[in-house]
Amino acid sequence: MKRRLFTPGPTPVPEQVLLRMAEPIIHHRTAEYRAVAARVNANLGTLFQTKRPVLTLTCSGTGGVEASFVSLFSPGEKVIAVNGGKFGERWVQLPRALGLEVVDAAVEWGNALSPEELTAILRAHPDAKGVYITQCETSTGTSFDVRALATVIRKHSDALVCVDAISSLGAHELRFDDWGLDVCVTGSQKGLMIPPGLAFVALSTRAEERMKGSTMPRFYFDLRKALDAHSSHDTPWTPAVSLVTAADSALQLLLQEGVENSWARHRTLAAACRAGVAAVGLTLYSQSPSVSVTAVNLPGGLDWKGFNRRLGEEYGIVVAGGQGPVSGKIFRIAHLGYYDELDMVTVIAAVERALSDSGIRIDPGAGVRAVQGEFTRAGKGGGA
Amino acid sequence: MKRRLFTPGPTPVPEQVLLRMAEPIIHHRTAEYRAVAARVNANLGTLFQTKRPVLTLTCSGTGGVEASFVSLFSPGEKVIAVNGGKFGERWVQLPRALGLEVVDAAVEWGNALSPEELTAILRAHPDAKGVYITQCETSTGTSFDVRALATVIRKHSDALVCVDAISSLGAHELRFDDWGLDVCVTGSQKGLMIPPGLAFVALSTRAEERMKGSTMPRFYFDLRKALDAHSSHDTPWTPAVSLVTAADSALQLLLQEGVENSWARHRTLAAACRAGVAAVGLTLYSQSPSVSVTAVNLPGGLDWKGFNRRLGEEYGIVVAGGQGPVSGKIFRIAHLGYYDELDMVTVIAAVERALSDSGIRIDPGAGVRAVQGEFTRAGKGGGA
Repeated sequence: MKRRLFTPGPTPVPEQVLLRMAEPIIHHRTAEYRAVAARVNANLGTLFQTKRPVLTLTCSGTGGVEASFVSLFSPGEKVIAVNGGKFGERWVQLPRALGLEVVDAAVEWGNALSPEELTAILRAHPDAKGVYITQCETSTGTSFDVRALATVIRKHSDALVCVDAISSLGAHELRFDDWGLDVCVTGSQKGLMIPPGLAFVALSTRAEERMKGSTMPRFYFDLRKALDAHSSHDTPWTPAVSLVTAADSALQLLLQEGVENSWARHRTLAAACRAGVAAVGLTLYSQSPSVSVTAVNLPGGLDWKGFNRRLGEEYGIVVAGGQGPVSGKIFRIAHLGYYDELDMVTVIAAVERALSDSGIRIDPGAGVRAVQGEFTRAGKGGGA
Repeated sequence: MKRRLFTPGPTPVPEQVLLRMAEPIIHHRTAEYRAVAARVNANLGTLFQTKRPVLTLTCSGTGGVEASFVSLFSPGEKVIAVNGGKFGERWVQLPRALGLEVVDAAVEWGNALSPEELTAILRAHPDAKGVYITQCETSTGTSFDVRALATVIRKHSDALVCVDAISSLGAHELRFDDWGLDVCVTGSQKGLMIPPGLAFVALSTRAEERMKGSTMPRFYFDLRKALDAHSSHDTPWTPAVSLVTAADSALQLLLQEGVENSWARHRTLAAACRAGVAAVGLTLYSQSPSVSVTAVNLPGGLDWKGFNRRLGEEYGIVVAGGQGPVSGKIFRIAHLGYYDELDMVTVIAAVERALSDSGIRIDPGAGVRAVQGEFTRAGKGGGA
């Protein structure tokens, strides 16, 4: 059966990237590798919209976030973690496990934090050394306004502005330098369109300065070592070479499209996905929907496991279910990375059919028609 | 130019494994992935010669070693690190950076530690909670007798027996259960014949018990979390999926040959390499040569950079130079992983030619003849 992934990571890997990984392995302490790494490093700068170094670590996105905690702070220091879902929860648990004091800035799942709410938290914690924000909370399909939140942090505090852009970079607008961010982490298996196994971390000059005073125990995730090696396009430990060469191909694809065009494409895909979902008669879970992933409430009476099995076994479509408290209550359609307009028609068509098969009364074709309408309005196809 | 890697990691990746990585990416929270992971986990047990779980971590080998330190010990506890080269040095630096007290059991580079010497160290440090041994010290091409050293540790101490088998597993004999090891770490880009990016960690029941009392700060590298997920063929964080599928193919290849046959093959390859090197008139650096990598003294008057450039640019052969104090003094030929007898003929032929081109007087063909002779003695080819 033809399988199609609509999951928020791993996301589909373009065929030319897959074939790049099938090329003979190269050694990482050679001029050949450094030429690849130099190109990857330059293109990561464009992706993050920064002139600062972007470090490549061999680990998942969670490892990239851990690297920022252990490299920038000292035991007992206070950080604020904005927590509106499963990943927000992780950025509360992780620094606590490492010996930091964490302010759990909890937001109801499916909601974003407003700049006013964050201002109040910053006023209550003037001693906070860092604030962690997740741009796209994948578990709820919710977008946080990083630009606005970064502005209030810079206005009210000297805390470092730390952004988890793991499931947003390349899809959601993000301008590391212009927005005054200090740390930004992403993972390889998301907007970057390569398999999991790499994390990428951008650091501001301010963050680099802060590293000097950090006394957290660290070795593998020491960003000072990674920065020192970065200047010669090297890494302190053996990198995941085949994933770095994959990143080289994928970043070239991404930059051929252009970062701003990629943001626009994701906005259009998300709008079309939402229109299709609404036309099928379903409702959105999030009050602030992400452009990476659309979280949809399962209609009353629909069993998630049966619906998901139909989607997978009958139509070859892999979507994501709900996690934690929303397990069995929502499902999530990703449109992050290597997706185009016809992919949205495909996934909404499959959702329509699996709903029908599950006994949910829908108007067959209404969803795909709405998707087409949205793309027509966006200016492509249909003579608009 | 046809390129051939003779480096101790990354090692060559078989074509069928490269092509496996070019297959469509699968999602890690699916039955399809768990079926792959279940097979990988079972086959890792055979490779490590253990009935205990072998954990898969997304990081380099260094990350795997760090995971053992942060999961098994508590701040201020004492560990002994046997240090006979660049990797031994790292296992002194790493736990120190993490807040452990480290006994630097230094051995002269190129030498191994005897069981008697280790016994004296154990007697001097009865409070040591763990002993780290590197089975193959890649930087010097030196083999340490893990079985004998483990025996004296178990006899004189209740310290955990921790083995860095990063550049040895699959090549050097290692029997995790029978030899009473507590921790064994390897990396993917070595004997396993896949690209870098995964570490594999076996843990004894004793080590698992010891984890309960460990108070080191940890999150990403928490082996308790990895063990809990392992029972359902899962991982706490997103794994490097394409490397796990590569491991699936590579382990099947390795086990088709058989682990003991692989050990025997590596012994033969190493013996032939040493015979070839000697016949060319070169000498070995190590007093206890590894079967993974042969470290060779550069002859007097031979410039390493020029010799290496000739090997690479004229013959497409990538070998490894010396590191640290032996930089420019030795070179290293790997025969770890996907190598056969004809590969040894190839590399010695190239070494002969690059030596000649560099103005070193040799008897052309003496090296390859000695390699052939060694294989004949080993019982294959030549009618032996």
